[in-house]
Amino acid sequence: MNIGFIGYGDASFALSSGFRKEDQSIDLIAYDPMAFHSNFKELIQTRSKSENVQIVNSMEEVCKQTDLLFVAVPATKALEVAKEIKPFISEKHIYVDVTAASPEVKRKAHFEVRKSEALFVDCAMVGPLLVEKHKVPMLISGPGVEVLAEKLKNYHMNLKIISGNPGDSTAIKLVRSIYMKGFATLNIEMLQAARTFGVEDTVIEGIGHTMDGDSYESSMNRMVTGTSIHAERRSAELDGSITMLEEANIHSVMATAVKEKLDFISSFGLRDSFSGEAPEQWEDVIDSMSQSKTKR
Amino acid sequence: MNIGFIGYGDASFALSSGFRKEDQSIDLIAYDPMAFHSNFKELIQTRSKSENVQIVNSMEEVCKQTDLLFVAVPATKALEVAKEIKPFISEKHIYVDVTAASPEVKRKAHFEVRKSEALFVDCAMVGPLLVEKHKVPMLISGPGVEVLAEKLKNYHMNLKIISGNPGDSTAIKLVRSIYMKGFATLNIEMLQAARTFGVEDTVIEGIGHTMDGDSYESSMNRMVTGTSIHAERRSAELDGSITMLEEANIHSVMATAVKEKLDFISSFGLRDSFSGEAPEQWEDVIDSMSQSKTKR
Repeated sequence: MNIGFIGYGDASFALSSGFRKEDQSIDLIAYDPMAFHSNFKELIQTRSKSENVQIVNSMEEVCKQTDLLFVAVPATKALEVAKEIKPFISEKHIYVDVTAASPEVKRKAHFEVRKSEALFVDCAMVGPLLVEKHKVPMLISGPGVEVLAEKLKNYHMNLKIISGNPGDSTAIKLVRSIYMKGFATLNIEMLQAARTFGVEDTVIEGIGHTMDGDSYESSMNRMVTGTSIHAERRSAELDGSITMLEEANIHSVMATAVKEKLDFISSFGLRDSFSGEAPEQWEDVIDSMSQSKTKR
Repeated sequence: MNIGFIGYGDASFALSSGFRKEDQSIDLIAYDPMAFHSNFKELIQTRSKSENVQIVNSMEEVCKQTDLLFVAVPATKALEVAKEIKPFISEKHIYVDVTAASPEVKRKAHFEVRKSEALFVDCAMVGPLLVEKHKVPMLISGPGVEVLAEKLKNYHMNLKIISGNPGDSTAIKLVRSIYMKGFATLNIEMLQAARTFGVEDTVIEGIGHTMDGDSYESSMNRMVTGTSIHAERRSAELDGSITMLEEANIHSVMATAVKEKLDFISSFGLRDSFSGEAPEQWEDVIDSMSQSKTKR
């Protein structure tokens, strides 16, 4: 077994250190342009030695010695690497792009890589890589997912096959991220206000009372469909909340954005399209917005 | 039994119509400056007749004939009414401010009203008033809450006594509103992206998987405490989501606000204050931010 790394930064170090623990005899080979001349030289050399990773002079060399490639470079370099690596790869290679590039860039990288008949995998890591190393949950999508999963099956990894389409894994990670990070920041703004006014217990209990009986999907569906026809009124109601935050000198960027979003939603005139009655499914709301947008 | 209304718009009409159904013999008396000369004249006259509400010429007249007053005027008029009504009220009156004014304005109105020894109640209606009428859930706070609840006990209302402090009810409503409306708009932005990229099933299932095992309070606590030390990294990660939304031409005001909020949170240096380890309770996060703010 052999594994190559293009780029040997935090991600590759974490992965290689995990693979090494699984298998003392595995060949780990990396190329990083910073490994010889830069401030990172020492760090890269120390880390690669500690995990017995062979640092080579070129991408070509990595490709010669390995067939499973983890590409872990800055997002801005992801497409460039895919283009440069083409002459050195062939159908024997699996090219796993673990960068933070967008779904669009992943699709473009795939387009380049498949010209050499290598198998492309879009890999999105959705957990603390530095803590969980090679066992971090990975969403994978693209033509190479089955072969990749088979190849790594003995390494106790946490791979989730999403689809055959490069970009899907990354889209899932980035879309999910909007919700999860937004949930946290929305709560922080709400809690700062609640604590300032000394009403945190009642507010938290009340929200729990509203949310806890139901699954996320069901609450989400109820709130989204209701908002589609009540966006205008709710935007006006939110003025009170924003005024309150401002009077109390509390940072109000979330509340302000919520109001702006409600105004945006109400601009689609869904209340009229739905004849004043909330639709049953969130898809009706989103699809009506998309269609209305196309028409504009 | 008698009930007075200062202002006879949608709210007073909905309440009076509910009270009338409960009790044919109740005296309902209202004053509204619009009842005689304005575009609303006809509407007010029609509505008051239908519920057998006596429209009088002045606040003074309402105060003379009733001891329970619902003040339902535009938020911008709430304080003005409290000041103007002082000469006409005394210790026999309960003054229930159901306006959409801020907690600060409710406290100022209480300050005026108590000069006449009337009992003040801050009332926040937290449901669809036009649908549920007098049975809409009402949060009440202020010196008059007990007397009010006793007086209305036979009217099948949905009163929740919060505290003796005017402003608390309104604060709870407005704070809660940030979360509930934000939950809806955050989901709409997320779903528009998910649907565009065709990954909605996996994303919804994934979020449900993360959220559903736990109560709201517990998820909230975990996300808020985690964000306090990871805000900087998460802000950088969100760049990917924002880029993705922009590339796909999806309205991104929520994601942009989330990033701005993460930057704001990270500016407090909580990662250092907490020595890189997430605190146990959300209160630690909010209190550290408040203290740090005071110090600045």
